[in-house]
Amino acid sequence: MSNPTAAMPSAAMLVIGDEILSGRTRDANMHHLAGELTRHGIDLREVRVISDDRDAIITALRALSGTYDHVFTSGGIGPTHDDITADCVAAAFDTPIDVRDDARALMAAHYAAQGSEFTPSRLRMARIPDGATLIENPISIAPGFTLQNVHVMAGVPNIFAAMVASLLPTLTGGDPLMSQTYRINRGEGVVADPLRDLATRYPDLSVGSYPFQRNGAYGTNIVIRGSDGARIDAAMVELSALFPPE
Amino acid sequence: MSNPTAAMPSAAMLVIGDEILSGRTRDANMHHLAGELTRHGIDLREVRVISDDRDAIITALRALSGTYDHVFTSGGIGPTHDDITADCVAAAFDTPIDVRDDARALMAAHYAAQGSEFTPSRLRMARIPDGATLIENPISIAPGFTLQNVHVMAGVPNIFAAMVASLLPTLTGGDPLMSQTYRINRGEGVVADPLRDLATRYPDLSVGSYPFQRNGAYGTNIVIRGSDGARIDAAMVELSALFPPE
Repeated sequence: MSNPTAAMPSAAMLVIGDEILSGRTRDANMHHLAGELTRHGIDLREVRVISDDRDAIITALRALSGTYDHVFTSGGIGPTHDDITADCVAAAFDTPIDVRDDARALMAAHYAAQGSEFTPSRLRMARIPDGATLIENPISIAPGFTLQNVHVMAGVPNIFAAMVASLLPTLTGGDPLMSQTYRINRGEGVVADPLRDLATRYPDLSVGSYPFQRNGAYGTNIVIRGSDGARIDAAMVELSALFPPE
Repeated sequence: MSNPTAAMPSAAMLVIGDEILSGRTRDANMHHLAGELTRHGIDLREVRVISDDRDAIITALRALSGTYDHVFTSGGIGPTHDDITADCVAAAFDTPIDVRDDARALMAAHYAAQGSEFTPSRLRMARIPDGATLIENPISIAPGFTLQNVHVMAGVPNIFAAMVASLLPTLTGGDPLMSQTYRINRGEGVVADPLRDLATRYPDLSVGSYPFQRNGAYGTNIVIRGSDGARIDAAMVELSALFPPE
């Protein structure tokens, strides 16, 4: 397949949490981030899901931050003993980490307004690596942060989504890819040969084929993506001639 | 956190597909496999999601198959031009690949019974690396396969699940971990300090803390996992004394 996304910033996501790997929890953040990045013109190339293990987190952070323009993490920044993401990010970049005054002040005001106690465990959530920028958390206030090209966010889905909404407008995206989808009520095995020819004639476009089953019948969605709308239109005209609507 | 799972076989999953990284499709196979492996006594340590890119697939296959006892893949074994997983697995292990007679015979009988044409594209799905073992596909017949420690399966969720059901009984699992969950109707910030003490006193157990919000109130599920049921019981008794049921 061609790579029509070379001009867009690249990204990876690192999902941190034993509960996803054990099957206890179904991750929702990957799908949310994938859609938001596509809309913002950032090309998500890889996702890794790993456990709450210090060595695994540091190794993955170094590998991904060295390979992609952006790394987005979810999970492991709460108040409990198994929340070790912030310390691992600091360690991955050999950066000191300590309680930061502005983060503590935000949280102190929030807990005071709630009538909640600002416990030592909650204070851990104000630990931010030196030189990081805070990511706003309008829901439970304890912030995420960006250190170099790593954006560290919470794992609870509504807080993750709120942090993504705070963060994305600050990042520069490329020209978002355009895409068109064409549904064919036949299985991939019948569609494949003409589709291969079409893809060969449009090397500047990405031509994807996604089989589905509905009411016992096979079908295929063809998704054509690229940065040139006229080229996509031309390929779609050919596609609909090959497989006329029924 | 301690590692109570050292005696279990380790595993990684490789999800292959542009459509998941673009946010177009929400992956369902990771959550399914995670639950099945936990029940079978296999410890899923890492999941990677990558695009339909030959170099990315080969690199990930080599890294994961060299690190874990098992690697499970989903996606990219259909009949279209973007289905390149089987060829990448062969390349990753420097193994020849070609149409295999038993796979072709299975598929020929299936398409004949259906009255469908056995197209050249469909024949691609009978390409199996030398030395592989087939994984039965009771739904659409075109098989998956196991080569060395890599198990290659389809991405369509019901076919993936059927292949997992065919495969897992052939793999030796360890003693499954036992786990108990205790729900506390208070936020993690209040729970964290006593929980850290408890985890320190039970280094042979894994004590996880999973916050949730329901009807606007915060709560925390505590999950204690390990291989010794009596130890889990003892920790649960202490936990319920610390946070009595309301």
